[in-house]
Amino acid sequence: MTPLHDELRDRFGDRYSTAAAVRDHHGKDDSHHPAIPPDGVIFAESTEEVAFSVRACARHGTPVIPFGAGTSIEGHVQAVRGGISIDLGAMNRVLAVRADDLDATVEAGVTRQQLDRELRGTGLFFPVDPGADATLGGMAATGASGTTTVRYGTMRDNVVSLTAVLANGEVVRTASRARKSSAGYDLTRLLVGSEGTLGVITELTVRLHPVPEAMAAAVCAFPGLAEAVRSVVESVQLGIPVARAELLDATAMHAVNLYSGFSYAETPTVFFEFHGSEDEVRAHGAVVEEISRGLGGAAFEYARRQDERARLWKARHDAYPAILALRPGCHGLTSDVCVPVSRLAECIEETRDDMERATIPWGIVGHVGDGNFHAVFMIDPDDEAELAEAEAFNERIVRRAIAMEGTCTGEHGIGMGKIRFLEEEFGASGVAAMRAVKAALDPQGIMNPGKVAGVEPEKGLGTKLHERFKPYGGVELEIPPREPMRDPPTFD
Amino acid sequence: MTPLHDELRDRFGDRYSTAAAVRDHHGKDDSHHPAIPPDGVIFAESTEEVAFSVRACARHGTPVIPFGAGTSIEGHVQAVRGGISIDLGAMNRVLAVRADDLDATVEAGVTRQQLDRELRGTGLFFPVDPGADATLGGMAATGASGTTTVRYGTMRDNVVSLTAVLANGEVVRTASRARKSSAGYDLTRLLVGSEGTLGVITELTVRLHPVPEAMAAAVCAFPGLAEAVRSVVESVQLGIPVARAELLDATAMHAVNLYSGFSYAETPTVFFEFHGSEDEVRAHGAVVEEISRGLGGAAFEYARRQDERARLWKARHDAYPAILALRPGCHGLTSDVCVPVSRLAECIEETRDDMERATIPWGIVGHVGDGNFHAVFMIDPDDEAELAEAEAFNERIVRRAIAMEGTCTGEHGIGMGKIRFLEEEFGASGVAAMRAVKAALDPQGIMNPGKVAGVEPEKGLGTKLHERFKPYGGVELEIPPREPMRDPPTFD
Repeated sequence: MTPLHDELRDRFGDRYSTAAAVRDHHGKDDSHHPAIPPDGVIFAESTEEVAFSVRACARHGTPVIPFGAGTSIEGHVQAVRGGISIDLGAMNRVLAVRADDLDATVEAGVTRQQLDRELRGTGLFFPVDPGADATLGGMAATGASGTTTVRYGTMRDNVVSLTAVLANGEVVRTASRARKSSAGYDLTRLLVGSEGTLGVITELTVRLHPVPEAMAAAVCAFPGLAEAVRSVVESVQLGIPVARAELLDATAMHAVNLYSGFSYAETPTVFFEFHGSEDEVRAHGAVVEEISRGLGGAAFEYARRQDERARLWKARHDAYPAILALRPGCHGLTSDVCVPVSRLAECIEETRDDMERATIPWGIVGHVGDGNFHAVFMIDPDDEAELAEAEAFNERIVRRAIAMEGTCTGEHGIGMGKIRFLEEEFGASGVAAMRAVKAALDPQGIMNPGKVAGVEPEKGLGTKLHERFKPYGGVELEIPPREPMRDPPTFD
Repeated sequence: MTPLHDELRDRFGDRYSTAAAVRDHHGKDDSHHPAIPPDGVIFAESTEEVAFSVRACARHGTPVIPFGAGTSIEGHVQAVRGGISIDLGAMNRVLAVRADDLDATVEAGVTRQQLDRELRGTGLFFPVDPGADATLGGMAATGASGTTTVRYGTMRDNVVSLTAVLANGEVVRTASRARKSSAGYDLTRLLVGSEGTLGVITELTVRLHPVPEAMAAAVCAFPGLAEAVRSVVESVQLGIPVARAELLDATAMHAVNLYSGFSYAETPTVFFEFHGSEDEVRAHGAVVEEISRGLGGAAFEYARRQDERARLWKARHDAYPAILALRPGCHGLTSDVCVPVSRLAECIEETRDDMERATIPWGIVGHVGDGNFHAVFMIDPDDEAELAEAEAFNERIVRRAIAMEGTCTGEHGIGMGKIRFLEEEFGASGVAAMRAVKAALDPQGIMNPGKVAGVEPEKGLGTKLHERFKPYGGVELEIPPREPMRDPPTFD
């Protein structure tokens, strides 16, 4: 690595670091997956610098791992074969906000909360909302979504165009700024969700939406999980354009009450939100409340003022740390399946019935309108038996979802954690096609190796803590023990 | 070819044809591009038969060209290197309509009007509406859209999952039926818009939408093109969810009056449609009418009854044959650029100013809410000077759109006709990435060669009638003279 280290130090000076603390920080995300630090970290400031870095790594056959905010949770940033992490956090300029075209162009390191702030006063907003204050580049790379997907779609639907550096160091612009195009292969959607394995996203043009005239949130408690799920599914089936519809089970409600100072009923609950004109918000809320009452739901508790709504959605976004706080010192292992909405109630109920046998505590939250839910297991990071138990539940959840025509991951991505399910979901021919695309665009295999369609580096990678891995080059590397948890992560 | 012919005859009997009339029919689409017949045509009835066919062709290194309804207009089905056309028209079963999940699974040969009919009474509809009664497989392969895209999106947004046969004869299912997923590379959107060059689509799961409680269409005449465009752009910018907003220029209105028996003012006109509850439709219509009046628009003429609306939209869909009927015996050469909506008025006006110098007649129609418009040139198919003149205008339209951050094709695709613009739009690095993907998934180059990212087979291919091409294998092939036009094509 020495010649590459020297080359990067010459080019980037202080902005290239091999310090242990910096490397450690870039070798882990907000998940239970073990940290695997890269050999060095570049703090890039432009697309050109990223291109320089990729070209240098390509010359040396050294892996390249893009790093945004480190909020992913399937082991996306771990340097399983060593290599260089490219931190895009300093590429945080909003390059253009075009109100007339309802779009904005940003550097990849802009976070969603930063974009929110910069859009204040424009009458526009960016809807994709994964909870964590992720970078937009990371959100695109992960194919993220969140609470508003039922109305506004995922990153796939809200990215107009990307600028990315490919494995050969070339810069591509994946699309024009036109709202639609049928020109050529859809490189934009090929890169969205590719998790750095096909290229490093350095800039994005995203869709903006007009801030609705009126917005109202409503909380509704239900007698059971199935009724809560059905209230949303029936509303969606009727064509009511709910803007958000978030399920929290009794455990999650208990956690939210403790963590955020609410006193909601601790039964399965849906947090709704409605967007539109005053009349539309009132009308949509009334229809959904009627559906909910028919299923045993309580009267809607409305939050209409901006500060009330913000407090409510902050509580929802804090559900993950709130759940983890129920068991001090625990780590989260989180499932992320998504099934056709007609199967969701059944899928959640079977999952709950299965989990009632668990020896470790758990809670459930879900983006019900999309058919997506998360079971969060609160595991002791030092107890391999707990990890194994949670992994076994997660595996059954994935198999159940796939059997119901669903996906192993609705929004968290594949990373290292879900590679072993890819073939179950897509069959051997689908995975072979993905690997052919990967090999074509990254013939050296240097782009975030061991993720997505990459060969799972070792059996059980990401399933055991403090494990030994063979880094790139075949030298044994001692994986450092996991650090104490940083500030509680937030996600949905 | 003889061993392949024999193999296909053995397998398919009467459903494999080398008759000249059948080959001629499968060698052309609804455009000015010259017909180039394949060597034989398979009428496939199942995914397995398509897989058999592709495997057989792959063994012989023979090109494979999927054929739906033949309604494409950029030279998508021409057998520029000979080979076998696979006609999917007989794969026309609707396999499932799942009202609870708002989706349907269909074979690739189901046409959009057939699906419309099968959905009657379910309370659901499929929105993508390219005018022509195209097959859904063809619409997906082309990345089609149409009049409702401003509200409901394109095929990219409305295809949940595809079944396709790849170049190696393997069958892939590109996604589960979950409404969202971040699992692996997005093979669905890689195949949507790939025009048969990466695989043959044999089945699709598509999104359905609830039929709105109320729908109203409105016609509004404007003093000029720019005002007509601005009425739509300002409505979209305000967040009014218009369901359709279709521009017709004075020529197109004149043509529609003659062809469909209307007596509209023959000035630039927008056909709007509003979907929602009764109140929403009324409210959205009122806001858009106010915007339009501020721009000099006439009072809205509403069509609220289903039969009135159907007649109005049939007239709009017939605008293409109506325009062609203005000059008996002519063929259409149609531009298809799409630009950011903020540039649309300027782009259309500059285009009109340029075209006022034309010696051949033309008209303009546009999907204004998307930034997409078509200039239709009525050319004499036997006059190469007219073709060259129209091509030159089209080229300037494309360059103007790309300079305005737009795309060379909003919805018609690349085919043979737009290959030469791909590099201008995506740069050399973008096209190289597309070609790498193509080579990875189709190493023999047998999947619809000479289209999309395929090397343009000869300079000017698709720009001259009655031209000689070198078919696969290098033997000179006399391209038969163009047949008299069939029934007037319809498209948007």
